[in-house]
Amino acid sequence: MSEEKKIPYKIYLSEEEMPRDWYNVRADMKKKPAPLLNPATLKPMTAEELGAVFCKELVAQELDNDNAFIPIPDEIRNFYKMYRPSPLVRAYCLEEKLQTPAKIYYKFEGNNTSGSHKLNSAIAQAYYAKKQGLKGVTTETGAGQWGTALSMACAYLGLDCRVYMVKVSYEQKPFRREVMRTYGASVTPSPSELTSVGRKILAEHPGTTGSLGCAISEAVEDALSHEGYRYVLGSVLNQVLLHQSVIGMETKIALDKYGIKPDMIIGCAGGGSNLGGLISPFMGEKLRGEADYDIVAVEPASCPSLTRGRYAYDFCDTGKVCPLAKMYTLGSGFIPSANHAGGLRYHGMSPVLSELYDQGMMRAISVEQTSVFAAAELFARVEGILPAPESSHAIRAAIDEAMRCKETGEEKTIVFGLTGTGYFDMVAYEKYNNGEMTDYIPSDEDLKPGFDSLPDIG
Amino acid sequence: MSEEKKIPYKIYLSEEEMPRDWYNVRADMKKKPAPLLNPATLKPMTAEELGAVFCKELVAQELDNDNAFIPIPDEIRNFYKMYRPSPLVRAYCLEEKLQTPAKIYYKFEGNNTSGSHKLNSAIAQAYYAKKQGLKGVTTETGAGQWGTALSMACAYLGLDCRVYMVKVSYEQKPFRREVMRTYGASVTPSPSELTSVGRKILAEHPGTTGSLGCAISEAVEDALSHEGYRYVLGSVLNQVLLHQSVIGMETKIALDKYGIKPDMIIGCAGGGSNLGGLISPFMGEKLRGEADYDIVAVEPASCPSLTRGRYAYDFCDTGKVCPLAKMYTLGSGFIPSANHAGGLRYHGMSPVLSELYDQGMMRAISVEQTSVFAAAELFARVEGILPAPESSHAIRAAIDEAMRCKETGEEKTIVFGLTGTGYFDMVAYEKYNNGEMTDYIPSDEDLKPGFDSLPDIG
Repeated sequence: MSEEKKIPYKIYLSEEEMPRDWYNVRADMKKKPAPLLNPATLKPMTAEELGAVFCKELVAQELDNDNAFIPIPDEIRNFYKMYRPSPLVRAYCLEEKLQTPAKIYYKFEGNNTSGSHKLNSAIAQAYYAKKQGLKGVTTETGAGQWGTALSMACAYLGLDCRVYMVKVSYEQKPFRREVMRTYGASVTPSPSELTSVGRKILAEHPGTTGSLGCAISEAVEDALSHEGYRYVLGSVLNQVLLHQSVIGMETKIALDKYGIKPDMIIGCAGGGSNLGGLISPFMGEKLRGEADYDIVAVEPASCPSLTRGRYAYDFCDTGKVCPLAKMYTLGSGFIPSANHAGGLRYHGMSPVLSELYDQGMMRAISVEQTSVFAAAELFARVEGILPAPESSHAIRAAIDEAMRCKETGEEKTIVFGLTGTGYFDMVAYEKYNNGEMTDYIPSDEDLKPGFDSLPDIG
Repeated sequence: MSEEKKIPYKIYLSEEEMPRDWYNVRADMKKKPAPLLNPATLKPMTAEELGAVFCKELVAQELDNDNAFIPIPDEIRNFYKMYRPSPLVRAYCLEEKLQTPAKIYYKFEGNNTSGSHKLNSAIAQAYYAKKQGLKGVTTETGAGQWGTALSMACAYLGLDCRVYMVKVSYEQKPFRREVMRTYGASVTPSPSELTSVGRKILAEHPGTTGSLGCAISEAVEDALSHEGYRYVLGSVLNQVLLHQSVIGMETKIALDKYGIKPDMIIGCAGGGSNLGGLISPFMGEKLRGEADYDIVAVEPASCPSLTRGRYAYDFCDTGKVCPLAKMYTLGSGFIPSANHAGGLRYHGMSPVLSELYDQGMMRAISVEQTSVFAAAELFARVEGILPAPESSHAIRAAIDEAMRCKETGEEKTIVFGLTGTGYFDMVAYEKYNNGEMTDYIPSDEDLKPGFDSLPDIG
């Protein structure tokens, strides 16, 4: 215990200790994630085909299954220094509250204006777009963290930023929208009249409040139809997990510095950007047989792509303009229940994580949202940070494990990712505070329409 | 320049380097701030009289004009470690954007869920209340930072927290309210039916949207009429400036560590809690003749207590239940123009700062709000932090000075306080983004009703 006490509340690396490379976990995977397919030919997407949608350098990163380390350009490292290194926090107060023998750490990515880890990939994607001489980028955003992050990166580099925001979020989260506008982005509610796919969806479903899959289709069409623009995406893709590896690299450096070896690593999982980034160097050790960790993905019971989805090729978007990805998926026709608050609502999961999960290298669990908000409230009160609903899935799992340790007396070391803050999610908190929040576990029948929407591919 | 580059983007002290004492600038003032007066007898408030409203230990701190250093209890230091030390940031990106030879630093107090520096005093006041065996505390809040901070501190210590929130804020800032509720506080729109002063104000002004002065009166009455409760205040008082000295102490330790001597120290000023805390150790050196600094208070042109107010005894609250304080004031009858966004709307100013200003130890300037939001937007885009409107007054002044340095070629070192983030102020940002924000400089005629409300005391 006396040795324990030497660990500060917050471990901050110095700027010199920040990683100089991203780590590409694919290099250590014997069986690689399945390639993206051209939906017309069903053949792997070539660099040239991908180059119409994505920046050149990002295409190279997307397709690179071999190089374990990709240097982080100085310009990106300088931007990182505005909000990184992020603290690895020892949750002393939570441990005391729970009276658990477990040692709990969390990597906190929320201390920046985007409020989440999304900035790690936004600056990288914007940087390569700028380097390529592009005018701007297009993207979609749901809860708004990604759109905000990209707006910040584009403002910094002087790039135009066009965001398609899921209509229901656009209307219910006007403040997120204003943050993006403050950073100079144009924000359009999706589906919109600006794109043919948007007009088509509006004609077929006049009352629709939009979806992430639909906003992706619009953003891609927008990029394809404007000279000097490319599309960027905040999760799912290999390149995004690569950029997000900075989270895990910093975590590992900080743990190593104090001689701490985690037993369990927990992350919330929507498209997989945070989880994939956090676990990457630990997964690398596990893949190379150098160490073992219990790696756990936590997803909402209402959107259970890993725990109840199928591992199959699927459309990434509603308009089916994107390549097909092999992933754990509920089908692009899946729509989360209306009572579902917060993000983590994408129908699929990162192909890298899907493959690792399929190989048995990680576990997945699902949790219900009232228990997630109960964990969020407890965490806020003792640790002083009001967490994002997404991050609170990981908090729930960490608390549950710490309580199991209390029963068994195990002194497990648990590390989880605290991806962001909940300052723009107070509508959901209000529901919880008023006792009006409900849970929803889809029945097999509820999942059927999604699975029926899966393309018929081997 | 090569030496310059060694200074990191963010200077983080270690937890061991955090100050162990608060610094009480009154100890170094030859002429002390004027004492609080009993409004009935017009005699200085005794410790016993103050003890009915405030905790014992806080009364002692309020009246202590002699001890320069007050030890920070371990329990408070441990709480501080959840979000402190806060970074001193070198604004490299802002400097580059402005192409100024000035060196700009800001002490960033916004990386905590209350979103501002208010937590520094909230935890201290809650701690002493708990130590005295009280059940709970009452307070008022306007923009909501102070109420949020106090809710967090009370949740941590298990104290009941009753917040009177200015009605217009309660209605326009429901998210702030929900943050406080998440931390277990009860939040009542003021004026309310819960207190006799609230009922009186409602009867006289049925359509009123409330004011800080009115909410103070209600919170004080609530504390006085409930066994085991005391009232706490987030600004103006000597004790608050004492607790906030942790900002300035950390700033000075960080600057000293890198051998940096500031020429100019800038802080926004409403009631004075941030400014008083930030400048305290520097003001101490100045008072002792050990160093000289250009110390600048920045206030809104629409609420110009230092630049256009009178130095006189005045009521601190609308209901006139509080002691009288000698301060620069616009009169308790002053009401800021409806177009004024954000905080810094209190009619008076900390007696400590008022006395120092009167002695010529610091300057004050006022700025108009559209220019403040222009500075906020520029700052957000280059430094990556969306600042609170209050903090942005200091940003405006720092940028103006840096631009003057650009003309003269002076390599001034400017330090300013970035008190918080603007995530709950997006209504104001939206107005600015839409070009709908206006300025307002009160005429002498506009200020007359406030001055007429001043009590007739020598």
